[in-house]
Amino acid sequence: MTTLTPILATSGEVGSHSAKHTVRMAVAGVSGYAGAELARLLLAHPRLQDARPIFLGRMVEGDAASGAQAPQTLLSDLHPQLASYGATDAVVPFSWQRLRDEGIEILFLALPHEQSREWVPQAIESGLRVVDLSGAWRLHDVSNAAVYKLHDADPVQAARLQNEAVYGLPELHRDAIRKARLVANTGCYAASIILALAPLVRAGIVDIEHGIICDSKSGVSGSGKAPTAKTHFMYAANNMSAYNVFGHRHTGELVEQLGVTSSQIQFTPHLLPIPRGILSTIYLRLKQQTTSHNVEALLREFYKASPLIRVHRSPSLPQIQYVVHTNYCDLGFELHEDGKRLVLVSCLDNLLKGAAGQAVQNMNVMLGWNEAEGLR
Amino acid sequence: MTTLTPILATSGEVGSHSAKHTVRMAVAGVSGYAGAELARLLLAHPRLQDARPIFLGRMVEGDAASGAQAPQTLLSDLHPQLASYGATDAVVPFSWQRLRDEGIEILFLALPHEQSREWVPQAIESGLRVVDLSGAWRLHDVSNAAVYKLHDADPVQAARLQNEAVYGLPELHRDAIRKARLVANTGCYAASIILALAPLVRAGIVDIEHGIICDSKSGVSGSGKAPTAKTHFMYAANNMSAYNVFGHRHTGELVEQLGVTSSQIQFTPHLLPIPRGILSTIYLRLKQQTTSHNVEALLREFYKASPLIRVHRSPSLPQIQYVVHTNYCDLGFELHEDGKRLVLVSCLDNLLKGAAGQAVQNMNVMLGWNEAEGLR
Amino acid sequence: MTTLTPILATSGEVGSHSAKHTVRMAVAGVSGYAGAELARLLLAHPRLQDARPIFLGRMVEGDAASGAQAPQTLLSDLHPQLASYGATDAVVPFSWQRLRDEGIEILFLALPHEQSREWVPQAIESGLRVVDLSGAWRLHDVSNAAVYKLHDADPVQAARLQNEAVYGLPELHRDAIRKARLVANTGCYAASIILALAPLVRAGIVDIEHGIICDSKSGVSGSGKAPTAKTHFMYAANNMSAYNVFGHRHTGELVEQLGVTSSQIQFTPHLLPIPRGILSTIYLRLKQQTTSHNVEALLREFYKASPLIRVHRSPSLPQIQYVVHTNYCDLGFELHEDGKRLVLVSCLDNLLKGAAGQAVQNMNVMLGWNEAEGLR
Amino acid sequence: MTTLTPILATSGEVGSHSAKHTVRMAVAGVSGYAGAELARLLLAHPRLQDARPIFLGRMVEGDAASGAQAPQTLLSDLHPQLASYGATDAVVPFSWQRLRDEGIEILFLALPHEQSREWVPQAIESGLRVVDLSGAWRLHDVSNAAVYKLHDADPVQAARLQNEAVYGLPELHRDAIRKARLVANTGCYAASIILALAPLVRAGIVDIEHGIICDSKSGVSGSGKAPTAKTHFMYAANNMSAYNVFGHRHTGELVEQLGVTSSQIQFTPHLLPIPRGILSTIYLRLKQQTTSHNVEALLREFYKASPLIRVHRSPSLPQIQYVVHTNYCDLGFELHEDGKRLVLVSCLDNLLKGAAGQAVQNMNVMLGWNEAEGLR
Repeated sequence: MTTLTPILATSGEVGSHSAKHTVRMAVAGVSGYAGAELARLLLAHPRLQDARPIFLGRMVEGDAASGAQAPQTLLSDLHPQLASYGATDAVVPFSWQRLRDEGIEILFLALPHEQSREWVPQAIESGLRVVDLSGAWRLHDVSNAAVYKLHDADPVQAARLQNEAVYGLPELHRDAIRKARLVANTGCYAASIILALAPLVRAGIVDIEHGIICDSKSGVSGSGKAPTAKTHFMYAANNMSAYNVFGHRHTGELVEQLGVTSSQIQFTPHLLPIPRGILSTIYLRLKQQTTSHNVEALLREFYKASPLIRVHRSPSLPQIQYVVHTNYCDLGFELHEDGKRLVLVSCLDNLLKGAAGQAVQNMNVMLGWNEAEGLR
Repeated sequence: MTTLTPILATSGEVGSHSAKHTVRMAVAGVSGYAGAELARLLLAHPRLQDARPIFLGRMVEGDAASGAQAPQTLLSDLHPQLASYGATDAVVPFSWQRLRDEGIEILFLALPHEQSREWVPQAIESGLRVVDLSGAWRLHDVSNAAVYKLHDADPVQAARLQNEAVYGLPELHRDAIRKARLVANTGCYAASIILALAPLVRAGIVDIEHGIICDSKSGVSGSGKAPTAKTHFMYAANNMSAYNVFGHRHTGELVEQLGVTSSQIQFTPHLLPIPRGILSTIYLRLKQQTTSHNVEALLREFYKASPLIRVHRSPSLPQIQYVVHTNYCDLGFELHEDGKRLVLVSCLDNLLKGAAGQAVQNMNVMLGWNEAEGLR
Repeated sequence: MTTLTPILATSGEVGSHSAKHTVRMAVAGVSGYAGAELARLLLAHPRLQDARPIFLGRMVEGDAASGAQAPQTLLSDLHPQLASYGATDAVVPFSWQRLRDEGIEILFLALPHEQSREWVPQAIESGLRVVDLSGAWRLHDVSNAAVYKLHDADPVQAARLQNEAVYGLPELHRDAIRKARLVANTGCYAASIILALAPLVRAGIVDIEHGIICDSKSGVSGSGKAPTAKTHFMYAANNMSAYNVFGHRHTGELVEQLGVTSSQIQFTPHLLPIPRGILSTIYLRLKQQTTSHNVEALLREFYKASPLIRVHRSPSLPQIQYVVHTNYCDLGFELHEDGKRLVLVSCLDNLLKGAAGQAVQNMNVMLGWNEAEGLR
Repeated sequence: MTTLTPILATSGEVGSHSAKHTVRMAVAGVSGYAGAELARLLLAHPRLQDARPIFLGRMVEGDAASGAQAPQTLLSDLHPQLASYGATDAVVPFSWQRLRDEGIEILFLALPHEQSREWVPQAIESGLRVVDLSGAWRLHDVSNAAVYKLHDADPVQAARLQNEAVYGLPELHRDAIRKARLVANTGCYAASIILALAPLVRAGIVDIEHGIICDSKSGVSGSGKAPTAKTHFMYAANNMSAYNVFGHRHTGELVEQLGVTSSQIQFTPHLLPIPRGILSTIYLRLKQQTTSHNVEALLREFYKASPLIRVHRSPSLPQIQYVVHTNYCDLGFELHEDGKRLVLVSCLDNLLKGAAGQAVQNMNVMLGWNEAEGLR
């Protein structure tokens, strides 16, 4: 692996593209569910109609393995539903040269975190801006990140990037994302929980010492495309189960983004017999009595500049059916008549607001575009 | 409504039937899901092969309305799946006279609670023993029972019966059920929660002051057979939603049976896109550090004489797929490494262990039979 | 009901709108599933961004009933998922005056066929062009139309309109639709079958005398939004059933559009436990031996100018998962090695290509726009 | 593989067990769905309460591979839902010695057909009676059986057994099954189709020359337990697809059992998004006009001694919901008013009447027991 001349050596200020400048994207890893949604969103994005993205497989060009691979896999072979987007694009082997030749500016990685950990340093060095959909760069604290068992070729460089990476929730880190070289897309569960809790925790009204309980439920697409005993229709259909109690990797994101300790927040994921969608039910106590009106006002104020957050008026609550196939995160709540016990309900589509849609939203922010462009 | 001579005026000791005595059952209200399951269990019950139950509709014989009703509705017309049980029994109008003529000893009521409230006093007066599947008689505290908005013809008598009624969980009230005249079958959610919590709460190891969170998920059959906007396939399928936050009627059962206050326990039901099954995820803190081994031992000891409770060994957890179409309640848990934060998971089939199977289990206990008979 | 001055008295040539002319649409009947999809498609249609459609309920302004109705029902109240389209539009009572005042040119009716039969004559008389989604105007032969039991105020006028109405499949009747005053959207089942069969039948290669078997399967949304015993989740989920064997209303459309007799084609609908999508499996014999290559070529030639038809290469076959939420009809087939027995498989989304999407496609054709505009 | 002394050398007359004789069963291959159902039925079978079956894995005792395998896999580890049947039985490696030591009389094989083809000859030679659930022995005609690509160690012996094997539909071959040494359980699709057609075809009233169309739909369990792209929840849920058009292996069974040629019957299977259940819609013409009454009478007469067939009265039709979890095959039909075009609808549970339940029914017949024993 040789160090390449930065692809955009003269790019000057990051994050200040004029509307006329044509930006090129590349997506590495389009075989999974999030990759398919990402391809779909980019192909239909109004700002990218003159700058078709390129789609890369996980194999590196020139590798023995990739040589054997059929070079003409089309995007629509992998995902027939994309045929309606004219997705006759070939999925080509990954190649730094190709990224340079095509003048790519933003690279999306929808790959296992080990692969991301290997490729991102070079990508950044090459002047690419990266939106990474894996868990590789989400956690800043080394002890939290340990759950990913990362092995870096250059640990110092990796640690520096880890520190530089911006957590990819525009609603919380819009300014940093605008200028970021590396945006770490969030965990899907984490997005649903953090978006619900952040306004209240930041306002300092949550009794954090009492502890916060996050009971989350996700559709099967969250388990990935690999056929396993647990993704078999016969296992998942008509069933429900809890898993990874006290041990899910997204917990570290909650801790870091909400500024709480791991003993103050508890997260239990469950597998739902539906294709997509997450519903998180979150239990907390407020430090002082308040009213539903105040809670709603606080949420609305926090998200007043966030077009992809919808706040329900209590007692109306979000439902999965109203967020699937959208890039919204819907928030609702019910406050006990004691004015202190609060139940938050948060819904999003794990493949969109929890993955591909969020990645496009981050891209929009990085390029100074309307963050909801191509997402409604 | 005239007062009838007690049907079993000379029954002597309640609860001491010899094996030879043939006991006759009647079921009032077989049109719903629980009624269908109850009919199925009774028709297949090994101890009732010589004493076929009778099945009664909600209409009273002689009423104008019932006169218009087709008198020859068969059980298998209402529930074609029961045809395999030879369910060519006619569903006959309700009649006290018929109950007397047929020598009925145990009357099951699978009716709205208002109807139950009206009929149970006379049934008891007539010497019948009653297993009631509605919410009419579950709550002893008047303030808790207020959620059912009960209007009694004879409030004094009703209050006395309310007090006498035994809460129908054999695992907790076996001795009282054995002798009971009126057994109040539990709420389906309540059964799943109480069975998980009772051993720990009674052992005094739960930090009740900290509060207990019960996040429950139920299949659509829990919403009843009436077609509504919320039971429409298009609404329920691929969806999930929370409802009745802080306001579900089963909460009073938790409070009374666990001996906690309503501010110490919190219950949130959710609607799952599956036909049947409940999974409750329960969050609590222990007063003192303990081990998984101890928690499991405590649960096993508590249920050592309860054949229909199955305890998982941590980290194995119950799943809905393994309890549906059974009368089991499966219990599992995970204890945090801090030794104090505990997550309990409880699963049952809301129509069986949560309704019809529980009713038969109660009948078995009332008659001195093996409580699992006909339920495995 | 008085006769109104034609709204577009001077509209001159029908079907020749320049791009600059702003066309206004109205949709009557937005409470159902097809209505919701129609509203969504129109709100997102690129050619209608400056000419927001208006949405009308089924009640007529000034009626006693409508007076009682809450006048401020919003589209997003009826269909929360439309909130993402900024659907804060009020659904207003139906009124001829309003249609005139707003300068409406095209009126969509997503109403029961009786209502359509009542309103369409006046709409046409008023100079409106109509796309009707009911079954009221699909059938030209009086004996076929008898299945709808139509009662007309002015039978002569109705018969004339019935005769004038164009069957709303642009792939078959594009030219007539372009100039039509009244377009009768097709039955959803009928669309899936006719699109598969028309190329072969018109080519004269089908052994029609032998008979054609159409075995169709549809998701639950085809049964409408009214909660009934058959749309209850508990009935539809995990189930499948055939219904209306030999008696489904869409059969007449097959007969008329394919030019066969009712004894030459047989259609059996089935209810699938999925929200949306139709798959039709069609069995026929060819008059003479042919090859897969020829069958495919014939289909492709027939649909070469039809952007919303996708033809599979045998043995690849359409699946419901690849057409739901799209406006495509996917066609595939397998030819027996005898060269004569042919199985056609056709898939579409019953709410889109089978209803709302087809209506928008018809609108596009009527206005001289690209027929796929707003549908990909 | 050495030839063993016949296990039951003195068994004398096959098929004449007195009630007192204790019969022992073994099941080889309990890891799949049919194996699990078979284990469940045998464990609960009233005639086997004193003669627990033994359960064998696919590994042969003493093989290197089996040595590595955990020897203490419990039935309830493989299938937690069987725990309620006290299924703490160990699944032991396959061993001829063990079968002999345990005095096994009937061996069930729920294994791939290659394995069955290898083991059955020795089993028969050892005096065991075999119920085989694979496709290995269903077809008598060599050209039909070619679809299974069978390779036999001793082709002559295999051909002899192939010829001897009885097709395992008691409704058609009850007498032969009673005395059979080798019963070949049927294909699940084939059972649903043959049971519907046999009465009519045998009565000679079907216009076979015209051709019979069988359009069948099956739940996902029919695709087996191996996780694959097609059994992934994300692929199967909300979807439907046709497959193996003109090429499904069960077609040979239709041809042989109904006595038609392969050009006279056509079978198309489809995958349904449900766990279990088959619905077959069958299209045919009668030679002469008849009435619904006659068709129903013919079906009832044919099955008058078959307790597991239920005939609907037209226009009532079978539905999957009423046969799942039962061992019934439900039959219904609709006759066109022309008196000649007939649509048959047949439903069964592919894991029960189509596999495990049928195997137990065959066992019952083989042992002279009531054929429905343990199946209702």
